[in-house]
Formats: sequence, C-alpha cells, structure tokens
Amino acid sequence: MSSLTPRALGRWFTARPWHIRKMATKGPVNSRPASKSSGPSGTPPNSRILALARYSPWSSSFPGTWRTRALIQSAFYAVGIVLATNYVDSVWFPPETGYASPREIKVAIEKLKQAFPEEDRVSTDPSVLTEHGSSDNSYHPASPHAVVVRALSTEDVVQIVKIASECRMPMVVYSGATSLEGHYSGVSPGSICIDMSGMDKILEIHEADSDLICQAGAQWEDINQALKDKGIPLFFPLDPGPGATIGGMVGTGCSGTNAVRYGTAKAEWFLNLTVVLPNGEVIKTRRRARKSSAGFDTTKLFIGAEGTLGIVTEATLRLAPRLPTKVAMAQFKNVEQAVDAVQDILNSPYGPHIQCVELLDDNMMDAINIAGITTKPLPVRDTLFFKIQGDDPAIKLAAKTVQVIVKKHGSDRFEFASTDQEAEDLWQNRKYALTSTMGAHPGTRCWTTDVCVPVSKLSELVYETKKDLSAAGLRSTIVGHVGDGNFHALILFENDDELPKVNDAVHRLVHRALDLDGTCTGEHGVGIGKKQYLSEELGEGTVELMRSIKKAVDPMNLLNPGKLYPDNNQSRTH
Amino acid sequence: MSSLTPRALGRWFTARPWHIRKMATKGPVNSRPASKSSGPSGTPPNSRILALARYSPWSSSFPGTWRTRALIQSAFYAVGIVLATNYVDSVWFPPETGYASPREIKVAIEKLKQAFPEEDRVSTDPSVLTEHGSSDNSYHPASPHAVVVRALSTEDVVQIVKIASECRMPMVVYSGATSLEGHYSGVSPGSICIDMSGMDKILEIHEADSDLICQAGAQWEDINQALKDKGIPLFFPLDPGPGATIGGMVGTGCSGTNAVRYGTAKAEWFLNLTVVLPNGEVIKTRRRARKSSAGFDTTKLFIGAEGTLGIVTEATLRLAPRLPTKVAMAQFKNVEQAVDAVQDILNSPYGPHIQCVELLDDNMMDAINIAGITTKPLPVRDTLFFKIQGDDPAIKLAAKTVQVIVKKHGSDRFEFASTDQEAEDLWQNRKYALTSTMGAHPGTRCWTTDVCVPVSKLSELVYETKKDLSAAGLRSTIVGHVGDGNFHALILFENDDELPKVNDAVHRLVHRALDLDGTCTGEHGVGIGKKQYLSEELGEGTVELMRSIKKAVDPMNLLNPGKLYPDNNQSRTH
Repeated sequence: MSSLTPRALGRWFTARPWHIRKMATKGPVNSRPASKSSGPSGTPPNSRILALARYSPWSSSFPGTWRTRALIQSAFYAVGIVLATNYVDSVWFPPETGYASPREIKVAIEKLKQAFPEEDRVSTDPSVLTEHGSSDNSYHPASPHAVVVRALSTEDVVQIVKIASECRMPMVVYSGATSLEGHYSGVSPGSICIDMSGMDKILEIHEADSDLICQAGAQWEDINQALKDKGIPLFFPLDPGPGATIGGMVGTGCSGTNAVRYGTAKAEWFLNLTVVLPNGEVIKTRRRARKSSAGFDTTKLFIGAEGTLGIVTEATLRLAPRLPTKVAMAQFKNVEQAVDAVQDILNSPYGPHIQCVELLDDNMMDAINIAGITTKPLPVRDTLFFKIQGDDPAIKLAAKTVQVIVKKHGSDRFEFASTDQEAEDLWQNRKYALTSTMGAHPGTRCWTTDVCVPVSKLSELVYETKKDLSAAGLRSTIVGHVGDGNFHALILFENDDELPKVNDAVHRLVHRALDLDGTCTGEHGVGIGKKQYLSEELGEGTVELMRSIKKAVDPMNLLNPGKLYPDNNQSRTH
Repeated sequence: MSSLTPRALGRWFTARPWHIRKMATKGPVNSRPASKSSGPSGTPPNSRILALARYSPWSSSFPGTWRTRALIQSAFYAVGIVLATNYVDSVWFPPETGYASPREIKVAIEKLKQAFPEEDRVSTDPSVLTEHGSSDNSYHPASPHAVVVRALSTEDVVQIVKIASECRMPMVVYSGATSLEGHYSGVSPGSICIDMSGMDKILEIHEADSDLICQAGAQWEDINQALKDKGIPLFFPLDPGPGATIGGMVGTGCSGTNAVRYGTAKAEWFLNLTVVLPNGEVIKTRRRARKSSAGFDTTKLFIGAEGTLGIVTEATLRLAPRLPTKVAMAQFKNVEQAVDAVQDILNSPYGPHIQCVELLDDNMMDAINIAGITTKPLPVRDTLFFKIQGDDPAIKLAAKTVQVIVKKHGSDRFEFASTDQEAEDLWQNRKYALTSTMGAHPGTRCWTTDVCVPVSKLSELVYETKKDLSAAGLRSTIVGHVGDGNFHALILFENDDELPKVNDAVHRLVHRALDLDGTCTGEHGVGIGKKQYLSEELGEGTVELMRSIKKAVDPMNLLNPGKLYPDNNQSRTH
C-alpha cells in the first residue's frame, strides 16, 4: 500500500488501459502498431508501458481470473473511497496550522472593509501595521499585522471574530501597547489586529456596591481620574505601567505597586468579564455579586491568558475606598536589611496601612536625581519608598511602627515627603522608572524584565544579579515590589550589537529566579519573551494542561497563536 | 445501506454462496437437487435463498458483467473497512458514559485491595459506603459508593486514579464531609470514594515567606492551631464551616467570615497546588513565589472545580499575620440600616481593621440565647457582629469610627464583648450557627443554603425571603457575610413530608437572588443541589465552556461526574 501514492496512481492512469482495451479488440495488444507518440527513431517508447498495461484489471487481456480482477479493482475502489473521505474531511476541518493563504487574507481584508466601511476603521497602511505589531520597549522578534481593525463595541468584535474564523486568520488584540514581552506582535503569514483602544468607556458606576462596568480599552488611570472627578471616594487599585488598559491588565494578570496591599489581577478585582469566544459567541463569566461559587472560575480562565482564549470586551471591576496617603522613604546600607525590614512591617498590626513598599537600588536613586524632578537630591543608597494609607491618627501610629522597625534593621534615615507635591514627585519617579532610567542615560535603550521569588530569597537574587550584570559590563537600575518578592531589572545598552549580551543576562536572571523556587515573570507575562522557560518552571505536564485547554477553547488556534506557552518542539528541545 | 446490519451480513453468509458455487460446478444452480437440510416434506426450503444467491458478486453464475461484480464487491469491502475502524475506535476510546460493568467493578475492588493490602485502607462495608456518600445536612439524592479507599500520599492517589481509569470507575474525593450540596455523593452504578482525611500533615512551614505546604486532608482549624502552638504569629485566613479541609476548600472555592478582610479561596491564598490529573499524571500549578504571570492561572482552574478536573493532594498556602482582635456588637431596628452601616464602615479609613462583619437576624439571636453558652441573654434584634483587628490604639481608633457610623444609621446600641471569653463565645455561636439553630429547636432538621447578591440588594433579599418563608409556614434563622452580600438561610423542618415545601422555598430564594443580579451560591458550591441554576445564571455559552474544559481535562468523565454543571438535557429543559 505504501507505493499507492498519488504519483503512482497518476502513472497508472497514463497507461490509459481503457483506451488500450478499446483498440485491443482489433487484435492482440502485443502486435499493436506503434502509436503516434512514438519517438522519431521509430522504436515504440511506450511499448514497455503497453506491455505492463495488460496487467491492469480493467484490461480485457488481463491474465488473471475474473476473481483476481474483481479483487484488485475492489481494493482500488476501497482505497479511493478512503482517500476521498480524508480529503473531504481536510476541507471541512482544516488542520490547526492551516491559516489563510495570501489570497484568502485579501478576501478577509475585503470582508472587513465591507463590514466596517467607515473611514479609519480598517487600515492596511504599512506604518500602522508595523506600529501595531511591535514595541520600542521590546526586543523580541516582531512581525507586522496584515490588517488593523478598530473595534468600537462587543458586536464589532463578534463580527471581526466571525470573519477571521471563516478565513482562518489569526487575531491579536491591541490596546494600551505597554507590553514588554511581545504580546501583540503580528503572526505570520498574516494576522488581524483588533485595536480596542476606542472601547474606552465607563458604562455603569455602582457606588453603593463599590463596582463599575467599563469597556476593555479603558485605561486604569482614566478610570481613577473619572471617579475622582465625579467625587466618588473609590478607586481601582491595580496599577501596572502607565497607559495600560483593562483588557491588557486582564490578559497579563497584571499587578503593580499596590499589590502588596490589594493583591493582583488574579485576586478578586475582576468580578465579571464579557468575552467573545473564538467561535464568535459572547459570554459573561459571572454576575455582579462580589462572591460566587457557581461553577468553574471562568473569570480566572481569561486572567493571564494573554488573549489566547477569548477577547475581553467589557469588565466589571470591584473598587476600593480611596484613602488619604503619605509617602515616606527609608535608606539602608544594603538590600538584605531593607527586605528584612519590609517583612516585619507587613506582619505588624499596621501592615494593612502599607499601601505600597518599593525597593529602589542605588543606581535607580542616582537616575532619579539626574532625570527626576525632585526639588532636592536624594541619597544614592538602597532605599525603600512607602505609601502609607489611613487618616492622620492612623498614619501617625503606622509611621511610628515603621520607624521603629526600619531602625531595628539598620536604617539610619526615615522621613516623610515634606509636601504633597514632593510625595507625588517621588512616587511619579518610581512609577515612571523606565522614563527616569532612560532620562538619566540619554541615547541608550533599555531592556526591562521581571522575575519573582519567595520574599526571603529576594536579597540573594538582587545581589547575584547586580554582580552578574556588572561582570557582564552592563549598566542597570533595579526596582522591586519588595513586599511580593517581585523584581525588575532595567538593563541599558546602546546598540543592536549589545543585544545578545543583554539577552544572555536576562536568561541567567530567569534561571537564577527559577533556582530560588521563583517564576520567570511576576507581572509582565509570558508573551514571546518568556515562553521558553515555562516547561522548566512548571513541568511539561502543566504546560500540556494549558495546551489542552487552549485546544478545547480555540481548536483552530486563531487567538494570539505562538504566545504564552512553548510550541511543542520548543519545550522538548529545551 | 441501512439494512447492512451485522445480522443481515450474517444472513448473507448463511446463504453460503462459496459453498453453493463449488457444488454448482456440477450442474446449473437452478437444477441442483435438494440439500440435506431440506425439510421432511421433501420440498427444498432453501430454494428461494439459493435462487437469490446467484446475485452474490462472489457467485460464478452472477448475471452482471465483471465490472458490476467488482463495483459491488468493492462497496462491500469499503463498508467492512469503516465498520472495522469504528469497532477498533470504540474499543480503544470507550464512550463517555461507558462506566464499569458490575463485573468490572468487582475487578477494580480486587485491584485496589491488592494495591493497598493494609487493613482499613480499602472498605466495602455497607455502612462505610453509605456514610461516605451522603450527609445528614444535605437532602439531595445520594448514592453509596462501591468502595472507599483511604489515601495517605500523592503516590497512593496516583495508584487509585490509574486503577479507576483502567476499570472506567468514577472517582469522588471525600475529606471534611462538610459539604451541604451533595458534592461527595456516590455515582451510579459504582464509584471509588477516595478518602483524603488521612492526608492531614503540614509538610513545610516557611515563616520568613509567610507560607506553608500541607496535604489536602488537613483542616484549616488544625493548621491555625499548629501555627499558634509553634509560636508562629501567622494564620491561614479562610474560615469556612468547622471541620472543612484544604482540599474541600479548594474544591468549593470557599470563603467564610474573614472574607470581608481577606477575600475568598479565589483570591491569592493558594500559591501552588499539587494535583493528580485524571490520566494519573502529577502536576504542580505554580512555584512558591507570591506572584506569577507565567501562563494560564492553572491554580484557579482547580479552585471551585469541585474535584471534577483533578485531585488536589498538596497545597502551598499563603499566611497572614495573626493580629489581636476584639469582638463588638451593634443592634439595629432593621436589616436595611445594618447593611447601609456596613458599607460606610468598610469604606472608611478603618475599613481594613474590620476582619469580619456578620449579620444575624432576630431569629438567629433568639436561637443563640436558647442554645448558646453566652453568660447573659442577647437582645433579640437584627444585629451586626464585628471582629476588629489591630493593636490597642488601632482598635480604639477603629471602634470610635464604627460607633459613629452605626449611630448615624440608627443603631442605639454598640458594645464590645466585655471579656475575651465572652468574645470567643459570641463568635463561636455565630461560627456554629447551624448547631445553635438546631440546638434551639430540638428534634428538627435544617436545610442550609446560601446565595449572594450585590451588597446594595442584600436588605431587599433578606426582607423578601423572610416574608416568603413566613408565608410558607417555615421557620428559619438567617446569617449573612454582610460585607460581601452573602446570605445563608437555615430553614427548619420536622419530617420528610415537609421537604418539598422547603425545596420550593430554596428554589424561590435562588430565583430572587438571580433576579437581583446575584448568584445561586456564594460559597457553598454547586454540587448536585444548585446545578439546575447554572445555565440561567451564567448563560448556556458559559456552561458549555465549562463542559468543553471538563472534556479536555477529563475525557472519560471519571472525576466526580454529575456534579457542578447541569447535564446537557437538564439545562435545555430548564
């Protein structure tokens, strides 16, 4: 059976047994005169084929019995039926990787243009395609998209998903574009980028229930500003990078400086999500109650899924009371002292008043002095920034406790920002660490990465990393959400020649974190940049579980393919 | 083609065309003498069959051309290939509902006994089978198991899962047995109950990282007692029903009275789970870092999955600092006042000091007076119980704020428990609400149920429910985790005749909650009792998503089948 290839079948037919049989009625096959196709030499070139043709079970001069003839013919037909069935199957159920051909991509773009005829909704401008598929702050391989579509409603997303699904086009969602790990890079040979940045409305605010409903393209800073402007004393406490949107925050399972007090996106701040599934169906993961045990936690299925399982179009956010805060600062001789002090503070009765506690190394403090807008220079030492929340008496009590504890751990300087403006400046400098770092080193570029380890291992990680970076001749600032063991390195470099060196340093940093029972990413997500580490971190069984869930929810692998977990071969060769 | 059943094929072969053909060479078929099988009457009974047999394409007297003959034979062979393939498929991949036959169940029990030869590991004692498959506090249909196996390690669970999988036996995990919704009921025709109560060890404590690793059968109260005994100032803050174990708490996505301050099992208290998957593979969902964005949140996949996706054998728990607490009490004229007061308190700068705030209705207060062990009787009015945490100065500040706010909302009485003993008694009475309720009404039985709504709708829900229960002639106490909008009714009845009336009242309560944008269960889980409501609450698309995940992870549907989400037909007829 192995020789029954389409090619062999082709040869069989070119022997033209039907034709031969008809002619053969005039005389024996062997004595047939040379056909027209004989070569100029006069010798019949088909004579060997003609001789073989009599073995065809359709030939009247077939030498076997009618039973052999019937058997061979029937085997031929049976194989034909099976091959035809397989072919029909492959057309009806295209295999996972069977994405649209270039012709089909053109058809899809036409369909999108028909569905969204308004100007500025569908773009194939090369600069737009590239800008939506790559980031200045990420150095992973990036491809432009085939088309960018601006969605303005859940219904728009459904329409786009249906067209993409019909045409087998991969889809990549784009909104805040603050990802550092290549999450929204285009997919070869051509992807539809769904730009959600226009879906930025707050739809409902329920002050009495401390929740609100918004679209996925809304930025967390705009939401908090809107609440402030309306005089509502609530805020949404997840604070990742400036400019991040709700949809992206769901996708990466983000956190931020407030995580030490409020937890991350994987806690309970997202009450309900409206999601468009890969088949175009719209679901809601829950209702608006704060708690529910009704079935699988499908909300969490999409948090951290990086847009690979569904497209989040709306979200119900739980809000927290907005409390007065004060910013304080403590300097330490070294990182170890700082980390130990933080654990003591968080475990004290005033732990809940600590809204944030951030570690900034001496290099980062230096960068803030150079680039920052602080009125007086800050000491260039390993430093903790605190944001303490509560009313005045509570902050006084908390500050007293903090002061005693940091002193116990060797800090010789603890002070509050003297004015609200100074407090805000300090915090802005921390929040915009990337900007401060690059501002202090004009003309450089910066590779930002994060890992997370059990808190007790954080100082070891910081020491070893600083030593390693310095040995590799790389400059870097370090900031950390020290209460969670989450650590960011902002590694500076000048040109593409240095990229491999930086890449290697990041690779060593990740392995250092994994060796300390940590994770390859605390809050930036996997995207393209970290997917090679997942099998090592979690084991092949856990990664395989992710793959089976992906396959169950998105069998055609259309949503953000090639991100989040290693390809099958990648994890095996690792 | 529809007549080509195995039976028809059998008839075809009994026509014995091969045999006939051989004999026929002696003369024409039609003139063949009567065979030995001719009846006693002398007329040949097979003559009609014999006459038809010449139409067989294997017969030498087949009237058609050899080409027709080949075509019919090939159709026959092709059908044969398809039937054979289907048969092989059905043997290799038995259909979903193909559970073990009674004979196979016996084989499975034998295999279990061989794998665990120690006494008390494998039981088929009818009383043990019934006790492990039903609960005194749940009135849903319950079946005994076919066998109960006590697991003592992850490896034990792997062995059991492999035997269950080989023999296609459903598995149901049992540990604390505090479920109220029939979660651990047996599965017909026979299930293996995996008793995890022996897996109750704390394996590692990392005080510096505020986490510990324990087995899934450990009870939360024992864990907290062990930490206290060791002088470690940390505790695990999830506090569901007394006796609940870590595995069950993961399964139902539990919470408890502390949820208002610490969130639920769906927050970030479970850092990592060791899970045995239905194929016997052991995975860990994460590492020990407090935060991770590395891939899908597979930890959350198992939280709230009620043992339908995998068997949790170990867990890494995050711990919180154990702080001094004081218990206080405020009486109100009605529930509405109480609910409004709670929202104001939680949104104040002292909100984080409120560890718990519980609503107890007048009936519950009455029950506590009758059954409780309080030294002095409590006022029989709608009451809030507070647990305020912090050191003395912090509690004083917080209490002052609480007092001002409850007064503003019409409370005329706010007082602290005068002694630690009184505080503990009060709290025990709340924690053991079921025991207090039943103690106050000896001889009665109690159906406990919970729903959850947005907080602003809670008083409406309580009013309407009290009115409805009273109209139905049912007595009930009501307690609520009022900070979360979570509400428990403990409905009393005397005998089985009253069960339908109670069942109807619960049904109406659930619909009332759903109408208020709430959920059919806030923390008790779905089990058998609430599965009929899931499609209505979440929509068929979300339930279908759950089904596809279940199918991807547990294709043979062996883990706790028939729980968590409605069967296909159930949701459609709803």
